Amino acid sequence: MMNSGSDESRLGEFELIAEIFAPLAKAPLAFGLTDDAAIATPPLGQDLVVTTDAVVEGVHFFADDPPDLIAKKALRVNLSDLAAKGCAPTGYLLVLSLPKRINPTWLRSFAEGLKEDQQEFGISLLGGDTTATPGPLTIVITAFGHIATGAMLRRSGAEAGHGVYITGTVGDAGGGLVRLKGNGGALLPEEDQYLIHRFRVPEPRARLGPHLVGLASASLDVSDGLLADLGHIARTSGVRIEVEAATLPLSPALKLLWPNEVERAIRATTAGDDYEIAFTAPPGRWPDIMQVAAASGTTVSAIGRVIGGTGVALLDSKGHQMQVGRPGYVHF
Amino acid sequence: MMNSGSDESRLGEFELIAEIFAPLAKAPLAFGLTDDAAIATPPLGQDLVVTTDAVVEGVHFFADDPPDLIAKKALRVNLSDLAAKGCAPTGYLLVLSLPKRINPTWLRSFAEGLKEDQQEFGISLLGGDTTATPGPLTIVITAFGHIATGAMLRRSGAEAGHGVYITGTVGDAGGGLVRLKGNGGALLPEEDQYLIHRFRVPEPRARLGPHLVGLASASLDVSDGLLADLGHIARTSGVRIEVEAATLPLSPALKLLWPNEVERAIRATTAGDDYEIAFTAPPGRWPDIMQVAAASGTTVSAIGRVIGGTGVALLDSKGHQMQVGRPGYVHF
Repeated sequence: MMNSGSDESRLGEFELIAEIFAPLAKAPLAFGLTDDAAIATPPLGQDLVVTTDAVVEGVHFFADDPPDLIAKKALRVNLSDLAAKGCAPTGYLLVLSLPKRINPTWLRSFAEGLKEDQQEFGISLLGGDTTATPGPLTIVITAFGHIATGAMLRRSGAEAGHGVYITGTVGDAGGGLVRLKGNGGALLPEEDQYLIHRFRVPEPRARLGPHLVGLASASLDVSDGLLADLGHIARTSGVRIEVEAATLPLSPALKLLWPNEVERAIRATTAGDDYEIAFTAPPGRWPDIMQVAAASGTTVSAIGRVIGGTGVALLDSKGHQMQVGRPGYVHF
Repeated sequence: MMNSGSDESRLGEFELIAEIFAPLAKAPLAFGLTDDAAIATPPLGQDLVVTTDAVVEGVHFFADDPPDLIAKKALRVNLSDLAAKGCAPTGYLLVLSLPKRINPTWLRSFAEGLKEDQQEFGISLLGGDTTATPGPLTIVITAFGHIATGAMLRRSGAEAGHGVYITGTVGDAGGGLVRLKGNGGALLPEEDQYLIHRFRVPEPRARLGPHLVGLASASLDVSDGLLADLGHIARTSGVRIEVEAATLPLSPALKLLWPNEVERAIRATTAGDDYEIAFTAPPGRWPDIMQVAAASGTTVSAIGRVIGGTGVALLDSKGHQMQVGRPGYVHF
């Protein structure tokens, strides 16, 4: 892997890439990237969980974003999936489609971002592929995680009467994107940077995720927007989900960016790229949830309830359904 | 998975994609593509082997290639890796970066190609991701295979005295690419079609691969060109490999395309995209190799030897090293 399958004139470049990435492949069964495949067998009694996500220049990040942060985003959107499924991450495969402008300096910074996150999350590069592309930089990561056999958290277990919860704060990444596009009013530089950083570098809730096993009845990470993703749980579980706008956890910076409460609630719940864990849990589990949240240093907020029916609703302070339009995410 | 993380205006399109691909995800632990991750735990006593390869429009295939054949190529380049590693394929993840021009008719044909190959190779779609791209169609597949624990064939086991072998014929895909670009002299339509088909639809040696376990000392699939890929074995194993040009298995169509023997040998061994298995084996294993080749309906040819030293050489009929230039592959 990490071989080119490509363009002779760039052979030297692809050898350089192998050199840059080989130190990231420390797992013995990654074979230092000198083979065509890697081994990802889980320990006895554990399931191997796999997830894959692409990030594309001009769609998920900007061409001039810092390379180390692009690397972290590409990796973290996958680690976020694993965390929401209750899994501990173990390793990943990396596929790079590189436009001609990418140079060794850029690649070294990109690899440095991966290295930092490998240390933070305790994972290793297992292998991958590199190819030239006449189009935008495209990064596809496949991440692997372990969990006790059969314990993977699903989208399908929510039942009427269960509570609805979210980690961290919602809407920040959407706010950051607005700032990167030069929109919105005046903010302090640190508020600006906070929102932009939330867009560029998601925070996978890897410390909390595995502790939700046995507590959460359904779980996923918020990538398309809170309401859209809760819609996935509602549809897969065959239930209706109501979110109370007044209970949404919002950062101070986001409150300043969008002073109007109604607009803010709608924007925060329809913006994507939060990469927080949204989950449901049976009543009576709240104390346990608070305990594992505190133990893992993760904020968790109760934001609504599961009821009979279909779909997702955002409720105002009087309990009336707010008109949110389409609960999807508009990328650039 | 197979969720969009993308563009609101195309939400309907991404729902359609989920509809088209869901029937391909029959493995129970693929969860019908309605979850964010899948489970790929191997049976007890087996290793899970993973490999990933990208194919990019304008680099690995042409935009107007038949969609079902593009799908097969994207899948088969990965299945070929697994076969060369001695593994039985089990499933795959699919990541599609789709330009705007891709329509439902194209996608249905693409899915049909996958469906046919799933049946042929006994595998299932496990999950994936779909995103919009402003660039070329890009397909990344991660394939999974099983093999007895520790038995994966490596690039690193070749030793001086071992023989060098190749499945099928070499150079056909390179010849097919030449034809697709409108070059070369007159050929019969069926010869033309044969070469083009060899470029468009690789033939993973999945029936033979698992039988090479215990016979082959080093093994890989030829994607960059026979000499370049044997170079990987030579480097990883710390040996030198000599290939005798006169012993190269060449198709009748390729002989007609390139009548000059010297040019033909050089082109056939430096063209890429063969997706044949190149392997080495200890002396005395030839009868066993012939037996498993016959049993699996795969042609295997002895083409050279492993000796002490470094690098790879192509030898003419007098045993002199031929000048091949750089043994890489020039894509379009």
